[in-house]
Parts: sequence; C-alpha cells; structure tokens
Amino acid sequence: MGKITIVGHKNPDTDSIVSAIAAQEFFKKVLSKESKAYRSGVLNNETKFILKKFNVEIPELIADVSADASVALVDHNEAGQTFDGLNYGNVDYIFDHHKLSMVTEKPIFCRMEPIGSTASLIAKMLFEKNVEISEISAKLLLAGILSDTLNLMSPTTTSEDSELAKKLNDIAKLDIENFVTELFEAKSSLEGISVQDVITLDYKNFEMGKHNVGVGTWETTNPESVNAKKAEIMQALVEKKSADKNSMMFFMVVDIIKGNCQLYIIGEEEQVLAEKVFEGKVENGLMFLSGVVSRKKQIVPQLTEELSK
Amino acid sequence: MGKITIVGHKNPDTDSIVSAIAAQEFFKKVLSKESKAYRSGVLNNETKFILKKFNVEIPELIADVSADASVALVDHNEAGQTFDGLNYGNVDYIFDHHKLSMVTEKPIFCRMEPIGSTASLIAKMLFEKNVEISEISAKLLLAGILSDTLNLMSPTTTSEDSELAKKLNDIAKLDIENFVTELFEAKSSLEGISVQDVITLDYKNFEMGKHNVGVGTWETTNPESVNAKKAEIMQALVEKKSADKNSMMFFMVVDIIKGNCQLYIIGEEEQVLAEKVFEGKVENGLMFLSGVVSRKKQIVPQLTEELSK
Repeated sequence: MGKITIVGHKNPDTDSIVSAIAAQEFFKKVLSKESKAYRSGVLNNETKFILKKFNVEIPELIADVSADASVALVDHNEAGQTFDGLNYGNVDYIFDHHKLSMVTEKPIFCRMEPIGSTASLIAKMLFEKNVEISEISAKLLLAGILSDTLNLMSPTTTSEDSELAKKLNDIAKLDIENFVTELFEAKSSLEGISVQDVITLDYKNFEMGKHNVGVGTWETTNPESVNAKKAEIMQALVEKKSADKNSMMFFMVVDIIKGNCQLYIIGEEEQVLAEKVFEGKVENGLMFLSGVVSRKKQIVPQLTEELSK
Repeated sequence: MGKITIVGHKNPDTDSIVSAIAAQEFFKKVLSKESKAYRSGVLNNETKFILKKFNVEIPELIADVSADASVALVDHNEAGQTFDGLNYGNVDYIFDHHKLSMVTEKPIFCRMEPIGSTASLIAKMLFEKNVEISEISAKLLLAGILSDTLNLMSPTTTSEDSELAKKLNDIAKLDIENFVTELFEAKSSLEGISVQDVITLDYKNFEMGKHNVGVGTWETTNPESVNAKKAEIMQALVEKKSADKNSMMFFMVVDIIKGNCQLYIIGEEEQVLAEKVFEGKVENGLMFLSGVVSRKKQIVPQLTEELSK
C-alpha cells in the first residue's frame, strides 16, 4: 500500500491546493500515515503567488492512480468536480465544506462542516488533536481561509473561521493587511489569462434537480478589467455550455472590494431562471446582484431549489 | 428556533437509539445546544431490554417536524432509511458509520467514520472534547458498541471500538461478560415478535446501481428458533418485496455465537445474483455463508458492486 493520495477539485482554487498540502501534516501527525498532495488542474495566479511567496513547491498534477490507491478528497465531494479517472471505491477520506453529494461504496472517514473554507476545517482538526502545526502549514491554511472567505467578509464566514485565522497567525506571523492586499491583487491579475481561463479557472458543475448546471466565478478587485471583455466572455460561455452539454451556464464576476456581483446571462433559459430566482433585471446580458459574492451560499442553493421543483 | 431533533433510522436498532440519546450530551456539552432524541419506529427486544435495565425512558416516536426544524441524523444517511416526512433541507447534522449516500441542499456538519458503531463515533467525539461523559451515556454507548459489533467480534469492529468500549466501561462499570449474555438473549428473543417483525425489525433498503434492494437481518444465538418458521418467513418476504416494489429482497439469519449466516433466497433473480456474488449454493431456499455476520461489510458492498456493473 503506497502513500495516501490527497487531491482537491478540478479547476483548483487556493483552498483546494493549500488544504491538500496541509492535510499531509494531519495524516502524518494525527493518523501516522504517509500521504502526498496533488493538484487536479492548472493553478490560478493567486495560488501561484502564495506558493511562490512561501517557497512551497507546486504539487504534481494528478495522473492515473493505482487500482489499490487510497484517496483523500479535499474541498469537494461532487462527482462532476473529481479528477478524471477517479474510482470512487478508492475514496477513503473526504474533508470538505460543501453540501453532501457523493455516494460511496463503503463507509469512509468523512468530515464536513458548514465553515468558510476547507483550510479552516483542516486547521480545526489539527488544533483539536493538539499537534504542533508547522509554520508553513499555518501560513498556507491561513492563506486558504483568507482566500476562500474573501478576507473573512464572505457570507460563508463563521466566527470559527475568524478564531482559527487568529490562532494560525500566532504561528504564521503574517502582516494580514498587507498580505490580503497582495492576495487580492494576485487573485485579480489577468496576466497570462485567456478568456477561456477567466471562465474556467474557478468553474464548477452542479447537479440541480435533473439539470447539469455550470457556474463559473471570477473574483476581482477590478471588475471593469473583466467586463471589458464581455463580448468574448459571452461567446466563450456559449461554446463551453455546448461543449460540456450543460443544461445551463452562468458566470459571476464578483467585486471583492464592494461585495457584489455581476451575473453573466447567456441565453433566454438562463434569463428566465435568474429573473425568477434572484428577482433582478437583466441589462445587456448582465444581472447586477447587490451583496452577492458567494456561489456556494447565494447562487447554487437558490438555483437548485428552483430547478428541483 | 426549537431544540435540535435527533433521530436514527427506520426499523431502529440499539445503535440508532442509544446514539440519538447520547448525542444529546454532545449537543449540550460540546455545542451548547438543546436537543431531543426521537425514535423512528418500534423498538426491538434488545433495545427495550437495555433502556429498561438502565432506567432510560423510551424516546418519543418522531412525528411531523416543523418547517424550520434543525435535524440531526444518527446511524444512517440513506434516503430510504430516513423517517417519513423528513425535508432534507432541515438536516444540519449527520453522525454515521455507513457509506455516504445522502445529497443535501447545503453544507452541513457531517462526521462519518469506518468504525463499528455510531455509538463509538459519538463516544469518540465526546472524549475528543474532554467533556465529562455521564454514567448513563457511557452505559448506553457501550451497549451500542457491543450490540452493533456483536461483542467486538463483527468484521466491522476496529481497534478503536475496543479502546472506546474500554474507556466507556471505566465510567459505566458493567460486568461485560454477563451484560453481553443478557444482551444476546434479548436480541434473540422472539417474545411478542411476529414473522413480519422478524423480517422488518432490522430491515434496510439500499440503492444498488439501478436496483432498489431490501436486506433484512435477524441476529440470534439460536438460528433454529427462526429457521423453524422458514416457510412463513419466505412468504412474508415475497409479500414485502411486492408491497415495497423492491427489485430484490434478501434476509439474513445471523448466528452470533458461531459467526455465520443463512441467507434466505426467495426467487430465481436473487438466487442467480447470490450464487454469482457469494459463490455459494442454494439448498432449500437457504444459502449458508461461513464467517458472514455483517450486512454492511459482507453483503451490501458485494451486491452493490455486482448490480452497478
């Protein structure tokens, strides 16, 4: 039996990468098991910035896993978000903060909480066991929390996230204010980013009733930089919807400073649904959603409820 | 917002009842929340014996829950095993030791482990938080572990179950050997038990590929007492299969002393499947399975794998 394979979701975000890396410390110190973190796709600019800043090697891209592999999924448990070629029978661990979605073949070790980030959960699990958290894990987990909760401002943030961030920073000793500024800049950077990247770097498929719905997100301090490419983005979304055989396709441009979002509406079906669910108006293909920043809390459950009727 | 509603699966077994009762202590002492344990059906003779012996009131039968209820499911997470009328949107907690199966509408607090009983998990969660476990919770949780693991002899038993049982008995101070004898006698008792009760008291429905398969279990020190009613049981199984519109129906009579099982085979479809999966022979409607005592570990995954091909 080799090392446990730890991996986050496709189109990895920071939380999914840092949680996989830090989970290695949980396996080693708490469960006395060897493990190795992988990534399940191309890193975004924010995650690249973090790993570079903290001198952490980029995890290997996951490829085929052996038939007797033991797999730990972090930050996801939807079938549409797992790496290609995963055999569900190999999943032995899930650490996540999303809704339950996966059906496994056997009882496994599963820990999920309605908390701001998977990094928060991994930190909690380490603190609970009173093991010493390394400085590098503390830095990575803190970055995961700050990224996924938009500096503890997203509606997914709980008081536990804030407490865990504080405890982690007793070890990490970061200048949070400066770090968040750098993090948000890296998040917003379009350097080397094609229009296809913009819509897919933080993209997830969801089963909603009988529909398979794609929802992409772009979090930025500078929504204008993205909206300037609106026509190209619309075209790319239409193509992706058709290529992926999605029933519907949405894209959110989230202003992480002002805390609102513009929802890209590519067709009539999407418009009818969005107008009904969010009670907003579509203008020039965009629906402005005041106070909406979280796909998980403010978009997916609402669409799912309507499409499950 | 009222108390959290804690409830186990339909056709409750001991683990499902004692876990619900003891989880109240977890909610109170760890999460500082008020909660109330319910049962989701008629108690079996073993559970009745335990509650009577420890002077614990039988939980109320669950009825309608309010639209804004907060529900904690213990010892199950399959849709076919939840109480009638449950709105999945109300599920906020799951504590279980079965395979993942439920799809929720939102992120929830979920803890599952591949461990011998849900009682073990609740005990672990209490010990982890260093809260004082009351004598009565310790007794109930210990009974849950011993019942679900067949006195730590079932293949579902882990070293953690044994350790937790030992730690619980530091508080409960039971004479384990005598207690298990009484427990097994109560488990095997047919007093007031109709043939319909025999097949349904520990009965569960499973989604296996595209099939809906029912598997009932009767654990006993005295398999002859049950097998004496074979003809009636076969008839009752055929009727239940038809009434529940199951694609297949199995029934296990488990000899908890000798550690084996007789699988009741009611039709040709079941026979073809069982002979293929368990490589045994059906004689007079029964297939003898040496060393098989666990539905969860030795029957359901094997059938599911074959039916998912």
